[in-house]
Amino acid sequence: MSKPFSLAIDAMGGDNAPDIVLDGLELAAERHPQARFLLVGDEARIGAMLARRPRAAKVCMIRHAPDVISSEMKPTAALRQGRQSSMRIAIDSVAAGESAGVVSAGNTGALMALAKIVVKTLPEIDRPALAAIMPSARGDVVMLDLGANVQCDARNLVEFAVMGDTFARAVLGLTAPSFGLLNVGSEELKGDERVRAAADVLKDSHIGANFHGFVEGHDITAGTVDVVVTDGFTGNVALKTGEGALKLMRDLLRQVFTSSIPARMGYLLARPALDRLREWMDPRRYNGAILLGLNGVVVKSHGGTDALGFAHAVDVAMDMVTHHFNDRIREGLSRLSAPVPAEKLAPVRP
Amino acid sequence: MSKPFSLAIDAMGGDNAPDIVLDGLELAAERHPQARFLLVGDEARIGAMLARRPRAAKVCMIRHAPDVISSEMKPTAALRQGRQSSMRIAIDSVAAGESAGVVSAGNTGALMALAKIVVKTLPEIDRPALAAIMPSARGDVVMLDLGANVQCDARNLVEFAVMGDTFARAVLGLTAPSFGLLNVGSEELKGDERVRAAADVLKDSHIGANFHGFVEGHDITAGTVDVVVTDGFTGNVALKTGEGALKLMRDLLRQVFTSSIPARMGYLLARPALDRLREWMDPRRYNGAILLGLNGVVVKSHGGTDALGFAHAVDVAMDMVTHHFNDRIREGLSRLSAPVPAEKLAPVRP
Repeated sequence: MSKPFSLAIDAMGGDNAPDIVLDGLELAAERHPQARFLLVGDEARIGAMLARRPRAAKVCMIRHAPDVISSEMKPTAALRQGRQSSMRIAIDSVAAGESAGVVSAGNTGALMALAKIVVKTLPEIDRPALAAIMPSARGDVVMLDLGANVQCDARNLVEFAVMGDTFARAVLGLTAPSFGLLNVGSEELKGDERVRAAADVLKDSHIGANFHGFVEGHDITAGTVDVVVTDGFTGNVALKTGEGALKLMRDLLRQVFTSSIPARMGYLLARPALDRLREWMDPRRYNGAILLGLNGVVVKSHGGTDALGFAHAVDVAMDMVTHHFNDRIREGLSRLSAPVPAEKLAPVRP
Repeated sequence: MSKPFSLAIDAMGGDNAPDIVLDGLELAAERHPQARFLLVGDEARIGAMLARRPRAAKVCMIRHAPDVISSEMKPTAALRQGRQSSMRIAIDSVAAGESAGVVSAGNTGALMALAKIVVKTLPEIDRPALAAIMPSARGDVVMLDLGANVQCDARNLVEFAVMGDTFARAVLGLTAPSFGLLNVGSEELKGDERVRAAADVLKDSHIGANFHGFVEGHDITAGTVDVVVTDGFTGNVALKTGEGALKLMRDLLRQVFTSSIPARMGYLLARPALDRLREWMDPRRYNGAILLGLNGVVVKSHGGTDALGFAHAVDVAMDMVTHHFNDRIREGLSRLSAPVPAEKLAPVRP
């Protein structure tokens, strides 16, 4: 292989694949004309579609994959039976060093399992973490882990903080992102052993100056810090609870604005401003969950997204590739491990 | 003591005590004319105030307390130094069996510590839990634990479920409340040992028919179940994350409706419907965090609430007293412990 691909793209993953994937790449190609994508999927089908998308056609090379991993397939089955699937062949390309990363809108569990096993965890990292960007009152916020690890120890939390810091620099473009550990209170004595041990290590680390300390649930949407660090159980619940609360509010507002004729008129008058709000909170702008800590960039697009959302997921992956994300993580971790006493990094389990 | 008091009321706890406490009791007395309240605080001050509130005066008896536990005082300090405080004397009255419960808008940590140590945990219970009622798309939902225990095992989760079930019957008036265990996914294999072990026990319990299984963060506001059971770390974070998301949305809507003259006019037109929404979500309607599992009813009102909010906290406590809440919990736990093998209830720690 002469020049590696920027990203391998699973053309067949997601509810509306391959259409939205191809349309998304047509948008992404405009933003990243220098990129090269390895488009993996049913060659006959995507070849014809690619021919009708001139910008994407310029930056994509097709590789045939006869199979698709369905959204219902268990990760274990995907591992055993999915060797000829578009997702697997795209991931294989990352593992082989041929592509710097992969983007898929397919089965989340399968992607995470395949990525962990095939692409493998960075040697410096105990466990990878799932991260995402979300809106807050003070700009975009990164949160991790969102569910890759339901059980985490102090060491994992410290590593998540370093990865989150690196991610916020690469993708949000921040020079000194602030970060906090999610806890039940902001006072130093709050929480369990695990978060307190992680806080002790982080305070004295090379990113200690940006460590805000403990943050609480409401700090996520308040934007108190740029990076919110937590275990995968808490992070997954917090993410879905916040999304659920916003959905409840949206549904109730829809009822409000259709409840009477004056309310409908009120909606029409306020509509430009409401549309700006909707645009600002558009989930497509925040599409892309990122598996951090592997030997390559792995981004999961929401399965139900559209072309715009898929293009955003590609943007996130391209930001990471362009900023040599994994080299930065390695640097951060090497700076971390030096001055921290081993016993502080040792797993502390409740 | 001849006839016990329904509730002991900490007259001095909260940001605007004793004023809002007295005003709240004036409202509560109208709803509960048969109740008898032991009003604990600075006799000279609250005596004069009570005289100006005729309905409250009829149902309250004053007991003098020279001290107040400040909002900054640590629980340990409150225990040592707070013996003559309004909160402590109110709690002592519950411990002595003179009052069936206590309501305070004072220092949360102090109230929880004093209640646990002075009122004591029910012998059938390993650990008490903090519960609250919150709005959802399908009616009120009970969630617990909200932070009384940052570390919980399977046994604790099972006990929380029984207490939450009893609470939903007593306070929400449901005859067969559905309940779910908060987890990172709804499939049976999701989550850690702890939640899976608790689910196994609950499936076969006397309330097993109402067990929905695992629920996720978004199920809280969707109202998928009437009772959401989780550990205190996750519950605390989820509660505050949900509140934070709703606050973000409210703040953004305020900006929308003041962003232009048409938007302002739109607001005025939609205002009656928006006001109904605001009323429905009014945090005062959901005021009152309840410490379940003690030898008495213990309700914490929000420190910054007004008279209406305080009256709601009194309502919740009165519902529990009237429905002999603790007798019901004991019944539930005795039915639980019989058919469940001991090894399933044994603490499972990650």
